[in-house]
Amino acid sequence: MTPLLQKLIHSFQFLPGIGEKTAQRFVHHIFGHQKHLAQGFAETLLEAIEKIKHCQRCQNLSEDDLCQICASSERDESILCIVEHPSNVSIFESTQSYDGKYFVLHGVLSPINGVGPQDLGIGKLDILLKQHPIKEVLIATSSKVEGEATAYYLYEYLNDKVAKITRPAHGLPIGGSLDYIDGQTLTRALRGRQEMVD
Amino acid sequence: MTPLLQKLIHSFQFLPGIGEKTAQRFVHHIFGHQKHLAQGFAETLLEAIEKIKHCQRCQNLSEDDLCQICASSERDESILCIVEHPSNVSIFESTQSYDGKYFVLHGVLSPINGVGPQDLGIGKLDILLKQHPIKEVLIATSSKVEGEATAYYLYEYLNDKVAKITRPAHGLPIGGSLDYIDGQTLTRALRGRQEMVD
Repeated sequence: MTPLLQKLIHSFQFLPGIGEKTAQRFVHHIFGHQKHLAQGFAETLLEAIEKIKHCQRCQNLSEDDLCQICASSERDESILCIVEHPSNVSIFESTQSYDGKYFVLHGVLSPINGVGPQDLGIGKLDILLKQHPIKEVLIATSSKVEGEATAYYLYEYLNDKVAKITRPAHGLPIGGSLDYIDGQTLTRALRGRQEMVD
Repeated sequence: MTPLLQKLIHSFQFLPGIGEKTAQRFVHHIFGHQKHLAQGFAETLLEAIEKIKHCQRCQNLSEDDLCQICASSERDESILCIVEHPSNVSIFESTQSYDGKYFVLHGVLSPINGVGPQDLGIGKLDILLKQHPIKEVLIATSSKVEGEATAYYLYEYLNDKVAKITRPAHGLPIGGSLDYIDGQTLTRALRGRQEMVD
């Protein structure tokens, strides 16, 4: 194993879940018969690092100043969904049941890690609310402790600025068995129970 | 998800065991907070693709014309270990119990895939045998069907050229329980049984 290959194996490990053994396997795969594909991959990665930036309006990942969703005139301007990460936008989009706009925080409030409101781009959120006729904000941060804390902070902050503030419903997942559901989720499902209709 | 990020997710999947979901996770990780590390990684990868070649003598991966092992004067010139892949060399080296030289085939004979002796560098092996005083060749191809076939081909080819041709011992793995051993391995372990001495 040459020093350069050692360095490559080491630098592969910045990827989540990739340890020394897997990195070695990748390197042997590349220098087996995949040099051409690896070259294309590395060039695409460098191009993406150079070109991908944050959308000026919603902070989502974008190649242009405005992302495709913000630039679209077919999306509902009156509802804004606030999410933690760009990956959350992809998941919402995959459902094809949301046609509003987004705002991406790129994190959650975390005083212990020194992450405050300004790090999440609250200033940009303010500008967005002033410039667009938003009637409802859907706060879709996670239901972990820091996600909930961020949701409450946003609720207090937005309360006098927006007519309606919502959270996605919590309850039983579709297809899930009652036997494996945790108590908190079941409690939420009970509280939020809905009347059956014909 | 922009077209460029889609392309990056697609090109990530040339790595073994990496599918769409994992590639998405990698991309979101990179554009979360790891752009700097990703850039260093991509540059190292391109540098390695440019500089890594096959050692002129043993065909192992190398940055120079001769790999570190072939260039070393401290290794035993009289024994040559033939392996399928560069990764096998790393494993032999990690045991620190082999101090001879290597020859890397970069594959096995496979008529069905059109891989013949010349594709494995048999010509280079010939030159190596003529130029160096090799007394023993240890054929360490795998014990799968194609590895065994390649070993027998090499045995026939080398039989009148080298004094001694060996294969690594097959038998029970150290620490392995008899309950879980397959019949073929146990048969080999019985045939190769050795007398205990004080």
